Amino acid sequence: MKAAVWYGKKDIRVMDVPEPPAPPAGWVKVKVHWCGICGSDLHEYIAGPIFIPVETPHALTGDTAPLILGHEFSGEVVEVGAGVANVKAGDRVAPDACQVCWECARCKEHRYSLCEKLAFTGLMTDGAFAEYVNVPAYTIYKIPDHLPYDTAALVEPLAVGFHAVRQSKLQLGDTAVVVGAGTIGLGTVMAAKAAGASRVYCVEVAKARKELALQVGADAVFDPNELDVVAKIKELTNGGADVVIECVGSDRSTPVAVELARSAGRVVIAGIYEKATSLNFNALSFTEREIVGCLAYYGEFAACIDLISDGRIDVKPMITGRISIDDIVEKGFEELVNRKEQNIKILVKPF
Amino acid sequence: MKAAVWYGKKDIRVMDVPEPPAPPAGWVKVKVHWCGICGSDLHEYIAGPIFIPVETPHALTGDTAPLILGHEFSGEVVEVGAGVANVKAGDRVAPDACQVCWECARCKEHRYSLCEKLAFTGLMTDGAFAEYVNVPAYTIYKIPDHLPYDTAALVEPLAVGFHAVRQSKLQLGDTAVVVGAGTIGLGTVMAAKAAGASRVYCVEVAKARKELALQVGADAVFDPNELDVVAKIKELTNGGADVVIECVGSDRSTPVAVELARSAGRVVIAGIYEKATSLNFNALSFTEREIVGCLAYYGEFAACIDLISDGRIDVKPMITGRISIDDIVEKGFEELVNRKEQNIKILVKPF
Repeated sequence: MKAAVWYGKKDIRVMDVPEPPAPPAGWVKVKVHWCGICGSDLHEYIAGPIFIPVETPHALTGDTAPLILGHEFSGEVVEVGAGVANVKAGDRVAPDACQVCWECARCKEHRYSLCEKLAFTGLMTDGAFAEYVNVPAYTIYKIPDHLPYDTAALVEPLAVGFHAVRQSKLQLGDTAVVVGAGTIGLGTVMAAKAAGASRVYCVEVAKARKELALQVGADAVFDPNELDVVAKIKELTNGGADVVIECVGSDRSTPVAVELARSAGRVVIAGIYEKATSLNFNALSFTEREIVGCLAYYGEFAACIDLISDGRIDVKPMITGRISIDDIVEKGFEELVNRKEQNIKILVKPF
Repeated sequence: MKAAVWYGKKDIRVMDVPEPPAPPAGWVKVKVHWCGICGSDLHEYIAGPIFIPVETPHALTGDTAPLILGHEFSGEVVEVGAGVANVKAGDRVAPDACQVCWECARCKEHRYSLCEKLAFTGLMTDGAFAEYVNVPAYTIYKIPDHLPYDTAALVEPLAVGFHAVRQSKLQLGDTAVVVGAGTIGLGTVMAAKAAGASRVYCVEVAKARKELALQVGADAVFDPNELDVVAKIKELTNGGADVVIECVGSDRSTPVAVELARSAGRVVIAGIYEKATSLNFNALSFTEREIVGCLAYYGEFAACIDLISDGRIDVKPMITGRISIDDIVEKGFEELVNRKEQNIKILVKPF
């Protein structure tokens, strides 16, 4: 079968590889319909290995590169292993990407993205830029017949936004600020609106993303290159927002995100950082603001599928490209590198 | 009456000042029995003005320096203003130091130390290094007859430790680490034990403080100059403590405090910082740790008085000196500057 395999930085190869074997006990084989290119995939392409195990086999999967990338996917179950009862061949599905041990303290609390041995499908073991992929049955969520496969491939990144909003403890009527309107930021805007935020403001610099943020429900978008966003948002929120969700992962935007929160407000860190942030912690001790990290999701898939299925959330505006796996490097990764501002989610068809 | 008045950095004068007038409506006059020297007082002496208003009158009190310092105090009510019903002349009391507006959003939530116009007694208005001080009646907490005045002067700093533990959301059986065993750190150790922490570990470098930490209930004290405290505490707590309370306010100890927490653990920032801290926020996003600020207290005074009064908490080991107000500079502030490691709480008798 055809697959996009990560060999190293700037070295992703579309090649023929053996189809996965019949799924073992507790696993299922999925025929992939669409798989989105994630920011993590892009980071592995530009600057990897970051999460991909290269020398030491992964603690859970035992795998090392080369690995098939891809984890934001939808597809159809074609075969199930022994003992699998929650899903059957023919089911239309959107799988969760977290493969976990279910034995460590966080797994037992169902905070499974914090598993000591977390293995992301398509980063720490073979993923879904391929015609077929084997995944554990516990990662499988069924989608309704009327939900198109392309839309369903957006469930995974939307679940990150759902989780960020849940980590923020946003309550009905709260004001929210989302810093950064990439895929995760846009999903977070939609999730915050769905959660009943009275106002959702977005901070973004790129023109296309600003427009998309408004399109998916942001009440206003502010550009730090055009105005003092802290002053503006403090004015609009009577001193600071109830919750702020940082979706950039930058040492420059993070102290701003903290300042955007009111006293005793809550800041969620949903970004991945390339370097340290300098923050005067009096910004916490003088205000009792809270900062909380946010990694992936746990348990939000079913709710995301529900809210997309019943039309409360429309993820389609986030799809900015559809390509064949043959073009994944040039029209996928290189396109995202060179025209970052125009693109949000590029979906890849593996067959 | 005699009072210790802050005129500027390194300029605290013991002088005769007029006794406060009869207390206005809603206020009471307290004859001060003991008043402790706080780290904040010391900072104002060494490097002030920090909190003391000098040029702009304080938003709530309208006061500027020179001001009488002192806010960790106990005493006897000698006169009450019109409309005061919660306290009467002759009552033995330990007053809360927060003078607030009761009108802003945080005041209305009873998180009054986050008041927009917070005025600390003895920092933003005249305090208790004096024979008498006028304070709002809402700051007054009565103490039982059997509770000595010297002990009662420790209620205020202990309340900070209580509040830090409450901000940590520590639950019965949790493991806790307290970073720094000064007054606040020691109070936090006692509060964490009183809250039912299964183990309370302390991180401290000064010999006298290490001994005091053990004396007030720490299960073990670790010195970063002697061992790898992160490795040691991770070993003892199966990967990190449930809660960590940072009571130093240092850019060096804070990233360590974060590392000491388990995944999804909670770090309380109880220190005041002189400079920015460099932290890679992946230490939050990869682990979903929480960091929360902590300022003073709100509502913890009555509980502190209860737990000291019934003997569950013994604050007496924290008293390392008792001096007359005449000696406050040499035997108080200078002693604390020059022999920081040997001293915890020096109490001042103003008459």
